Amino acid sequence: MTSRGRVRTSSNSLDPNEDPVSGLERVMSNSNLEQMARQRRRHEEELLFSRQIEESDRTDSHEALSARYESLNYEVSENRLYRDAEKKPSHQLTLWRISRNRWFVCFLIGVFTGLVAAFIDIMVHYSKDIKFNWILKYLISKCGEEQRGTTAGCMWTVMIAWIGYNCVLVTIAAILVIYVAPIAGGSGIPQIKCYLNGIAIPEVVRLKTLVSKAIGVACSVGGGLCAGKEGPMIHSGAAVGAGVSQGKSYSLGIDFGVFREFRNDRERRDFVSAGAAAGVAAAFGAPIGGVLFSLEEGASFWNQNLTWRMFFSAMISSFTVNWILSWFNGRSGWLSWTGLANFGIFENKDYNIWEIPLFLLIGVIGGCLGALFNYLNTRLTEFRKKYVSSKFGRLFECLLVAAVSGFLAFLTIFAIDDCQPIGANPTATSTQINQMWCKKGEYSAVASLFFQNPEESVKSLFHSPINSFGVMTLVIFGIEYFLLTLWTFGISVPSGVFIPAILTGAAWGRLFGILVERLFPSVTGIDPGKYALAGAAAQLGGVVRMTISLTAIIMEATKDITFGLPIMLVLMVTKWVGDMFNEGLYDSHIDLAEVPILGWNPPKMSRNILADRVMRKDVVALERRERVSRIVEILRSTLHHGFPVVDRIEESPYESLPDYGRLKGYILRSQLFKLLENRIFEEEGTYSNALPNDFYECQDDDDQMKSLNDLGLTQYDESCWLDIEPYMHPHPHRVPLNTSLPFIFRLFRGLGLRYLFVVNDDNHLRGVITRKDVARFRERRRNHEYHVDELYISES
Amino acid sequence: MTSRGRVRTSSNSLDPNEDPVSGLERVMSNSNLEQMARQRRRHEEELLFSRQIEESDRTDSHEALSARYESLNYEVSENRLYRDAEKKPSHQLTLWRISRNRWFVCFLIGVFTGLVAAFIDIMVHYSKDIKFNWILKYLISKCGEEQRGTTAGCMWTVMIAWIGYNCVLVTIAAILVIYVAPIAGGSGIPQIKCYLNGIAIPEVVRLKTLVSKAIGVACSVGGGLCAGKEGPMIHSGAAVGAGVSQGKSYSLGIDFGVFREFRNDRERRDFVSAGAAAGVAAAFGAPIGGVLFSLEEGASFWNQNLTWRMFFSAMISSFTVNWILSWFNGRSGWLSWTGLANFGIFENKDYNIWEIPLFLLIGVIGGCLGALFNYLNTRLTEFRKKYVSSKFGRLFECLLVAAVSGFLAFLTIFAIDDCQPIGANPTATSTQINQMWCKKGEYSAVASLFFQNPEESVKSLFHSPINSFGVMTLVIFGIEYFLLTLWTFGISVPSGVFIPAILTGAAWGRLFGILVERLFPSVTGIDPGKYALAGAAAQLGGVVRMTISLTAIIMEATKDITFGLPIMLVLMVTKWVGDMFNEGLYDSHIDLAEVPILGWNPPKMSRNILADRVMRKDVVALERRERVSRIVEILRSTLHHGFPVVDRIEESPYESLPDYGRLKGYILRSQLFKLLENRIFEEEGTYSNALPNDFYECQDDDDQMKSLNDLGLTQYDESCWLDIEPYMHPHPHRVPLNTSLPFIFRLFRGLGLRYLFVVNDDNHLRGVITRKDVARFRERRRNHEYHVDELYISES
Repeated sequence: MTSRGRVRTSSNSLDPNEDPVSGLERVMSNSNLEQMARQRRRHEEELLFSRQIEESDRTDSHEALSARYESLNYEVSENRLYRDAEKKPSHQLTLWRISRNRWFVCFLIGVFTGLVAAFIDIMVHYSKDIKFNWILKYLISKCGEEQRGTTAGCMWTVMIAWIGYNCVLVTIAAILVIYVAPIAGGSGIPQIKCYLNGIAIPEVVRLKTLVSKAIGVACSVGGGLCAGKEGPMIHSGAAVGAGVSQGKSYSLGIDFGVFREFRNDRERRDFVSAGAAAGVAAAFGAPIGGVLFSLEEGASFWNQNLTWRMFFSAMISSFTVNWILSWFNGRSGWLSWTGLANFGIFENKDYNIWEIPLFLLIGVIGGCLGALFNYLNTRLTEFRKKYVSSKFGRLFECLLVAAVSGFLAFLTIFAIDDCQPIGANPTATSTQINQMWCKKGEYSAVASLFFQNPEESVKSLFHSPINSFGVMTLVIFGIEYFLLTLWTFGISVPSGVFIPAILTGAAWGRLFGILVERLFPSVTGIDPGKYALAGAAAQLGGVVRMTISLTAIIMEATKDITFGLPIMLVLMVTKWVGDMFNEGLYDSHIDLAEVPILGWNPPKMSRNILADRVMRKDVVALERRERVSRIVEILRSTLHHGFPVVDRIEESPYESLPDYGRLKGYILRSQLFKLLENRIFEEEGTYSNALPNDFYECQDDDDQMKSLNDLGLTQYDESCWLDIEPYMHPHPHRVPLNTSLPFIFRLFRGLGLRYLFVVNDDNHLRGVITRKDVARFRERRRNHEYHVDELYISES
Repeated sequence: MTSRGRVRTSSNSLDPNEDPVSGLERVMSNSNLEQMARQRRRHEEELLFSRQIEESDRTDSHEALSARYESLNYEVSENRLYRDAEKKPSHQLTLWRISRNRWFVCFLIGVFTGLVAAFIDIMVHYSKDIKFNWILKYLISKCGEEQRGTTAGCMWTVMIAWIGYNCVLVTIAAILVIYVAPIAGGSGIPQIKCYLNGIAIPEVVRLKTLVSKAIGVACSVGGGLCAGKEGPMIHSGAAVGAGVSQGKSYSLGIDFGVFREFRNDRERRDFVSAGAAAGVAAAFGAPIGGVLFSLEEGASFWNQNLTWRMFFSAMISSFTVNWILSWFNGRSGWLSWTGLANFGIFENKDYNIWEIPLFLLIGVIGGCLGALFNYLNTRLTEFRKKYVSSKFGRLFECLLVAAVSGFLAFLTIFAIDDCQPIGANPTATSTQINQMWCKKGEYSAVASLFFQNPEESVKSLFHSPINSFGVMTLVIFGIEYFLLTLWTFGISVPSGVFIPAILTGAAWGRLFGILVERLFPSVTGIDPGKYALAGAAAQLGGVVRMTISLTAIIMEATKDITFGLPIMLVLMVTKWVGDMFNEGLYDSHIDLAEVPILGWNPPKMSRNILADRVMRKDVVALERRERVSRIVEILRSTLHHGFPVVDRIEESPYESLPDYGRLKGYILRSQLFKLLENRIFEEEGTYSNALPNDFYECQDDDDQMKSLNDLGLTQYDESCWLDIEPYMHPHPHRVPLNTSLPFIFRLFRGLGLRYLFVVNDDNHLRGVITRKDVARFRERRRNHEYHVDELYISES
């Protein structure tokens, strides 16, 4: 249903000739002066009522929920057509075909997600290749092997070429986001989380979003930003899932005419979760982590079959990535696990019981740093929302970030002298690039951190021997990366936070390991790599606050389960500590976007909030047999996406809204629209079953909304009657007026509801509860006590 | 609610002085002759009705559901006390305490599950130690190093001592199961699966069950049966979960007075699932697999917090096992992963794309063999149920199995001459035991399979070089193990099927690998160990039909994710092939036990089965204010565990049951009992709030049922009135009469319902739907078409 604001607006004008709402009321009852007066009084009451609510809400909290977001529609409309379909002999075949197609689609999702991920990876590879082996090598070789400082002018040229190249790539990424698909900006995980939670985020899984995201992330990572490609890969996987399963594309306007049975929110969400799992699997080589991610972030109902299909998609996607990359790297056919974010294998797999407290300490540090990161990034995003809103301003910020990132890298290399002998570190190889100003036989540890793929840097931090990096290098690198990531996450390019957070954490974790080693010089077996791993987990966990799926992802990405327990302990402590300060980064961004997301549990202290407080009373109902003109009026005058059907509607002299009778059913706007389109009227004798087979699956698409005038309904058509009963869902979910909020919450969460009707003791319709009405009650903790805040619903 | 059978029985006798049911009807209305006649007519109609149903059911299917099993009670009774509790200032503290205690209990569950698992492992270790190093070594050394045949007499002595020792251990296991805790027999996974599905299986999580299971499984594994200790460990974990969280023990009669807030089915099930996850984690060193197991087998609602606590328990349990075993094995404090079912690490981790079809073929074989196993075992169990029902008979069967298992092992060693040179296989060491009749410098491959821990045998089959086992050895070993496992699973000892199935599969998988190697002698890199792993996965998957959790368990148990994709492909094909023939082993056993389990999805082809067909009409309701005598009558005369509350009850002249008014609430039997116990009556002036704080959490325990007479209610008491309204749950779940079965199914599955009330259009109570009423509709496939069968509900 729409926001309160909208409803108020629509009843603002009281002239019955202009206002469609009053128009439909005219149909319902005999209009006379008395009624006009009643309407006016009612309207005034309504206005007062909504104002009071908004004011009381505003005093409770400064936060809001946006009315823009609608729920996805998971419920099957079990109308007569749907029930009769089962009796047809062809139904058995349909069941079989659907079941087969589900697997086939999941196979395709795996393959395409793998292809997209491999494409991104290869793009990044080539752009790095151009940058490192072409620009850098060429220019450095031109500058000669002179010592630092002497050829400053030459190095300036190098730097400007480097930054220029970065800026070109970042510009492409920014233009794709700003001008083509704004939803493709950022990580994409918050959007996918909302989608899986059951919220229709516009355009989030469109083809143009996918294309912008894939090309954009390759450019932003290739352009040297502190951005990961993992989050965008997950978003890409989700978009692939939605695209493949629908067999058509809005962006291209193509309809392949296949998989029609999957063209509804219920099926689509399943495929999107499979796609998200496939995305994680491709990004980290972590199929189990992928499945857990989809479950942790989204699906509230654990369905064995769906989970198994998700796992299948994830496996196929890993397989595809491995196959393509084995071919790309010249080892065609060799399938053993690699994954994209390959963090290497730990040689020293031991840890001892006295190291547990150290891991716990790392968890505390990670929690604090993560909370700090989230706080600063949220403030920055708010600032950006207010002051950097123009398209040009956003583009300029992207370029600024790209330039500063490149400049800082050079500055650091200039400033820190951390030359290490080659050979001490088997993971490092001396190239012309990382040799820089070091002597022959040595290489610059700083350059090896900045001038290689972030994934390679992670590997170095995890697996290099104890003295490979100087303390100063780690400190500076960690701080710079922390700040740059902070700035980068939220600008208008596709960019993830996983790899930057892991890098930051690995830097300070390694530092922690070195400190431990210096504090206890007598103890052997301290490997800073272990601590780097723990630090990476802590930093990432502190930022995103994921738990079980993150453990699985890190374990799978390191291809080893030895450090399962420490990682798990670190992540748990991190989450506890972080949650004392604020929410996870994704959740903060969701709150900033005012999305009505439902948490895992009902808010505490809400037992005494009952349905008659939660519900919206401004519900517009239909009778089972309605005149076409009234239906058209209602479709025109409201933005509601569905309408309850009751057995009678009476004007009540005492209430501000009509007195509705017994709840008989529920019909979608799109279904009404289709009935009008097919002229399923009576009194014309054109009553027919010529409805499309997928009638009961039809969706609220935007394109349907626009074309109400295109139906060409004549005055005669409008005088006909429409028998709604055979097409409505005959037993929508309902609760009595005294139902508590936790009970309602569990219904919404457990069943993925979009509407819940509130009836009185005689089963008469009294109100409706939508996701937003539930989501606006938020649990907050103030002065160590739980409270429930009521958010207001904003019109924007 | 009770079965139809019971209800019929209770209305069999019509004398109002004897029959409590008629007695309560007497209270309801003025008794006169006319009414007596009506009652008689109604009773006859009822009898006819139930007979018709039973007959029509029986013709549909020969299967039944037992009326014995009740649902667990997850729903919170949100009565006035519950709502008022939130207003107390102490409630904030309670919230915090509950949250803290949940984590603390999960910690304890992890520790105790780990302790139990380590105890079982150490017990098995010592019993094997006695057997191998004491009996066998002593006797073999007495027999000397003569060649086979010459000292046949001496070997007979060895064998008899060996079999005798086995029989003693198996007798202990069998006595524990047959005389102490019958529910401790078998694997325990079917029972846990049912419990997590929401069914109250009596005694399944009691302390005596845990003790019998833990000691029993150590004896049956130590006694040389083809039995695994993994399933029983999972059951033990679940029992630990239930026991620790309740802070009391029925078996011991001890109440520690702690964790009172967890004494309800809702909280207990959460802890049981954490315990089951901890059990898997301890058994396989697979914490992620454990969590997935609990989710796959049980929890339908994915709750992030619960999952995270499950994972915590699982991790702590792994940790505890590792710590104890590191201490036991003399490497105290060394925590790196080992796990109990350690399958070793694969050195050769490569596989190539052309091996994929071979893995698929292994999947097909596994599916067929698994289906064959399940078919034979189900038939055998049916046979056993009919003909081996006496306690002595069951004990005798156990001894017979023990003797035959021991005899076959010796016979095989006698029959097969498979001596291998020592040194070719680095995993094998020559001991006096496995040298047997082989020459010096050689060892008997057969003896090394039979005369070591099954887990060690699995390791040998996975990791030994290509020629370590002769073809004949593998064939005979595989067949023998298959048949012995078939016979063993289902006898009255605790015994799992995991390790035996893995061993069988590893044997034929290795054989498969050897055949591949002989067929393609030119291809290098074929390692029969890989195929042994695939075969093990296939055989196990074919038997238990678990999917995602089994993949995770095998991956974690092999400590490597390289073979993730092949294992997953194998398991998927296996499940597809197996499901064409029959169900998984656990599901077959659940069906044989007639447990009303709910599957993952509603049955197909059930859209036209509506609530008025699903529901039971013989519902007994209360008014909001009832005379104590009527309540006592109802509690005496019915076994219902809860009663709907309506606003009026009227005798209807046309219906066989009273005409109930509007549904107002729902009250549990145990709550009524507690109200009576505390004399919360009116007209006595004793109305008080002196109810225990946990009133709204109180459970239907058997001990409450027994003591109805102990309340000492006087005649005066019985004449009082009880005001039910403040204590009832005021908004139970309800659906209209035209609700479809899939809709009802999703409500039950998504929300874990126990009761669903059916109301007519005016919100008048018309019937009740319980788990059994939903579960009796089963999807079946006949002639490639789906049908819905209706099972009848048996009284047994």
